[in-house]
Amino acid sequence: MTKPNIAILGATGVVGTEILKITDELKIPYENIKFLSSPKSAGKEIVFQGKTHIVEECTPESFDGVNIVMASAGGSTSQKFAPEAVARGAVFIDNSSAFRMDENAPLVIVGVNDDDLRNHKGIIANPNCSTSQLMLILKPLHERAKIKRLIVSTYQSVSGAGLAAINELREDTLANLEGRAFENVCFKKPISFNVIPQIDVFCENGYTKEEMKVDLETKKILHLPAATPISCTAVRVPVFVGHSEAVDIEFENPLEPDEAREILRKSFGVEIIDNPDNFEFPTTRDAAGVDPVFAGRIRKCNAFENGISLWCVADNLRIGAALNTVRIAQKVIEMGLY
Amino acid sequence: MTKPNIAILGATGVVGTEILKITDELKIPYENIKFLSSPKSAGKEIVFQGKTHIVEECTPESFDGVNIVMASAGGSTSQKFAPEAVARGAVFIDNSSAFRMDENAPLVIVGVNDDDLRNHKGIIANPNCSTSQLMLILKPLHERAKIKRLIVSTYQSVSGAGLAAINELREDTLANLEGRAFENVCFKKPISFNVIPQIDVFCENGYTKEEMKVDLETKKILHLPAATPISCTAVRVPVFVGHSEAVDIEFENPLEPDEAREILRKSFGVEIIDNPDNFEFPTTRDAAGVDPVFAGRIRKCNAFENGISLWCVADNLRIGAALNTVRIAQKVIEMGLY
Repeated sequence: MTKPNIAILGATGVVGTEILKITDELKIPYENIKFLSSPKSAGKEIVFQGKTHIVEECTPESFDGVNIVMASAGGSTSQKFAPEAVARGAVFIDNSSAFRMDENAPLVIVGVNDDDLRNHKGIIANPNCSTSQLMLILKPLHERAKIKRLIVSTYQSVSGAGLAAINELREDTLANLEGRAFENVCFKKPISFNVIPQIDVFCENGYTKEEMKVDLETKKILHLPAATPISCTAVRVPVFVGHSEAVDIEFENPLEPDEAREILRKSFGVEIIDNPDNFEFPTTRDAAGVDPVFAGRIRKCNAFENGISLWCVADNLRIGAALNTVRIAQKVIEMGLY
Repeated sequence: MTKPNIAILGATGVVGTEILKITDELKIPYENIKFLSSPKSAGKEIVFQGKTHIVEECTPESFDGVNIVMASAGGSTSQKFAPEAVARGAVFIDNSSAFRMDENAPLVIVGVNDDDLRNHKGIIANPNCSTSQLMLILKPLHERAKIKRLIVSTYQSVSGAGLAAINELREDTLANLEGRAFENVCFKKPISFNVIPQIDVFCENGYTKEEMKVDLETKKILHLPAATPISCTAVRVPVFVGHSEAVDIEFENPLEPDEAREILRKSFGVEIIDNPDNFEFPTTRDAAGVDPVFAGRIRKCNAFENGISLWCVADNLRIGAALNTVRIAQKVIEMGLY
């Protein structure tokens, strides 16, 4: 098979920039590569692997001759361009939520459900950040003891909301420390030195869309029955990069913390930091800029007969978005699925 | 009954300062009031209700003639002085963890289990901050539907760790924004723009003491069976004042979110902010400096057949410490229990 022609859509955004970096790090093979964006960012220069590229405005014709698209440009852009790319023969790997629950689009975390890639019909969806990191933890434990019930509380950084949100946390924090007033734009409430129990809009059942993503995407990725009871509370904290999650899992079968720790120690993409005697556990900043999902605080959950509680931390821009997107592209190439 | 003589032990600390303020706000009646501290802070001046007082070094004899002590001076100080105060006829209301699980000491949240005050033998314990705010929420719901299982994830501010921790968050944040190195002392890991899944030391079961307090104190205050399954993950976030909690409750009996909301709307010490359509929910900073425990995000919990998920926020220095201490003193006076 010849090397693919690759297009990166949304190349100038927070996640797009990470996709570039990781495409280089993982040495993704390609024949040609191009960078696409909205009219606003078109014309910008991007230096990639020593070569200067001009960012092109994305049009349907941009995908002529393209084999693999990595897209991180928001739901409406993906809705518009994915069918155009697929019609021209490209595999469209999408970071937005547009196709995640589409039964024709596999929703894949590499290392968890790679086989689902074989069923793709052109579009492959990348899960939401808060789901992604959890999957690498839950999959090997589920294989061993079968998940029966799941409760997740998240501690999510502002970078999930984009560049403007990162700047807003910085500006709001400085204003707060200097006693100046500050008007928040990205967040519904002040973000500096505050905790906001809302990410994305609310659904009729009182959960937010972000929370329902954890519920529904987890079931799709792990092939759990739709009736599996899952509850999530998704919360924004004043952190730049990295999402953390407190997780309580009930299993069908007994699973001791020591065994859970050993299973995770051998798992793809997971690193254990778990030595309470020395106050060793993962904090959010430990994960910023690196690939693993870190797990710690692994203990028997006092709320369930067969239960494990744990804490996990990951870089939401990497495993939660760009890293898995590029890993999907890598797998699609390896498996010859383009 | 004559008005009591009151002593405030630990008068110069973060919580002690709040106790003074609230003693004034609640117009606690007294004949005489005195302020006690460690040798280090003795000699400082405190202006209270227009009168200047000199802080005295606490000795056993300090309690001669004192009827009610409000103490917030740490566990070892309470261990040392509580018996001395009680031997001299005082009621010792203690903010530390020293006597909370002592079966001779009632553990009381005013408005929740006031009747337990009648069993006091001199020492009355004030619950830990993370437990306190939860009790005002759980009690009325428990009365209606009976708690079967409880899962709590906390988002706790640094003020629970004292004045030095407040300064450390400020200094660490500034250093981070200015790109300077900073060495943390109060926290085991950097606290600026970070989330730390550890408060207090670890127990053998992998839970921290802070987490086990939520478990054990909840059972003592609500008179729940010891076998009630409760799991907590206690987490430090970069916030100055205010603790937040994501709470998932399973009940014995059905309880609809609308009814839970109505019950809490009428409950002592609770205020509801819960209108998702207008993005109204409590954030941590809403609670700083005020008395109520705020509840919101009240919804049917997807993890349990009979379950409610909710979010609550309170000022950890007030309801979590000083406010309830002074309310206990007020009740002890009203009920003539000194």
